[in-house]
Amino acid sequence: MTTQPLFKRLCLIGIGLIGSSIALRARREGLAETIVVSTRRKETLDRAKELNLGDVYTDKVSEAVQGADCVILCTPVGSFASLGERIAPHLAEGCIVSDVGSVKRSVVTQLKPHMPDHVHLIPGHPIAGTEYSGPDAGFSTLFDDRWCLLTPEEGTDKAAIEKLTQFWKSLGSMVEVMEPDHHDLVLAVTSHIPHLIAYNIVGTASELEEVTRSEVVKFSASGFRDFTRIAASDPVMWRDVFLHNKGAVIEMLGRFSEDLSQLQRAIRNGDGDLLFDHFTKTH
Amino acid sequence: MTTQPLFKRLCLIGIGLIGSSIALRARREGLAETIVVSTRRKETLDRAKELNLGDVYTDKVSEAVQGADCVILCTPVGSFASLGERIAPHLAEGCIVSDVGSVKRSVVTQLKPHMPDHVHLIPGHPIAGTEYSGPDAGFSTLFDDRWCLLTPEEGTDKAAIEKLTQFWKSLGSMVEVMEPDHHDLVLAVTSHIPHLIAYNIVGTASELEEVTRSEVVKFSASGFRDFTRIAASDPVMWRDVFLHNKGAVIEMLGRFSEDLSQLQRAIRNGDGDLLFDHFTKTH
Repeated sequence: MTTQPLFKRLCLIGIGLIGSSIALRARREGLAETIVVSTRRKETLDRAKELNLGDVYTDKVSEAVQGADCVILCTPVGSFASLGERIAPHLAEGCIVSDVGSVKRSVVTQLKPHMPDHVHLIPGHPIAGTEYSGPDAGFSTLFDDRWCLLTPEEGTDKAAIEKLTQFWKSLGSMVEVMEPDHHDLVLAVTSHIPHLIAYNIVGTASELEEVTRSEVVKFSASGFRDFTRIAASDPVMWRDVFLHNKGAVIEMLGRFSEDLSQLQRAIRNGDGDLLFDHFTKTH
Repeated sequence: MTTQPLFKRLCLIGIGLIGSSIALRARREGLAETIVVSTRRKETLDRAKELNLGDVYTDKVSEAVQGADCVILCTPVGSFASLGERIAPHLAEGCIVSDVGSVKRSVVTQLKPHMPDHVHLIPGHPIAGTEYSGPDAGFSTLFDDRWCLLTPEEGTDKAAIEKLTQFWKSLGSMVEVMEPDHHDLVLAVTSHIPHLIAYNIVGTASELEEVTRSEVVKFSASGFRDFTRIAASDPVMWRDVFLHNKGAVIEMLGRFSEDLSQLQRAIRNGDGDLLFDHFTKTH
């Protein structure tokens, strides 16, 4: 261990793609004296143990967080209100409570009411991932050169923000602090809508009668292949993203549909100039 | 030259990404004794010459096709009716006339009326490409392990089909014969609609007031990055694809929009089960 550990006891709740990648890199960099892994399903916990992702393993979150100076929720965001309620009474003085969810306003709304005054709530979102999930999907370089956005409320302890920033930088990330509602709007555009559309077009294609599934797979050009890869992402995580970023997603989807109608009309009317201008603009 | 050349005189009209890739591979494999390169713009022709893509260069298509036993149109499909009319009187007995356009019914409709009885019209579509265009974008392995679809009408000379099939196999492709309308439906799903949607979402994102362009670029997750790459494809080629596959594209776009409305409603209503089921189905 070449660096001083940032945390004495790092607790990861949930050990899927993101949780296991944090564990692997935190260990590699010596960022925590002890890594506690907690997850609900016994098989996942056993697998995390086999993969040697932590030092302590428990399926009881109330035990997991005890004595931790940093707790990171790495489960789908739909679980946060319940988790927040259950861990709250057991959180140590000065503990940093964070997460890795793809939406941020909902995280504040779900966790804030439960958090005691003596902890520092700093929601986080590493913009990194693959189409794979589960503890076996993690790898230590997942966060290298990717952004991690932190969305603390005003008045949050500066030293705690600095410490969590340092942690994510040590995991390989670049870090920026952002307001949670703005985060949700930016990510609706750059990630949530693209995923929804990929899921949708792969769904449409798989239900055609005139074109067989095997033809779709066989003759899929670059465009469609990218979509199928995106649409293979974890369904629980994405369900929760859409349920918890409803406002921004519906708003952006409305604009997307208006713009698509314009292109559709141009195709119907044979308006080549409009199509050409649009396709040139996006270059 | 290890193999017997398939063609005495191969004429490529248009020398962009696809044309130049055919030229490079045909030369590497010794598939033609002479490669004639014809393109309208002087700068492109000069560049093709500098890149040594052919043996003969001309901006006059009527001269280019003379004596050729295979002519392949590698220009955007919107140019085919006019090209067909201009080359028709100069086509040699037994010449194979083909193309590389992404739509096929329109190619038959545009070329067929002009073609003399003594030539073999066999439209073709190599499902291969990148987001780059122009003669500098070509590379000899572009077609390796990619499908090339041929859509000859019933009654087309079998020996000519076999010869063109052999040509594409020598370029690295797998070849399948398909009916032109079915081709257009399959490709609408696997390629045209995905491209239209990529163009559309990149357009929507670039016009937002609440989110800056630099934020979109900076924080674009995997989903959006794939879309921007797709949306950087050649605008003239894609304009022509949509204008010339109007029916299938409008039909598929209708189904896509219906399905998207269903997902949108599920998000609005907080129907997590529907979202989960849909996202699982596309896995």
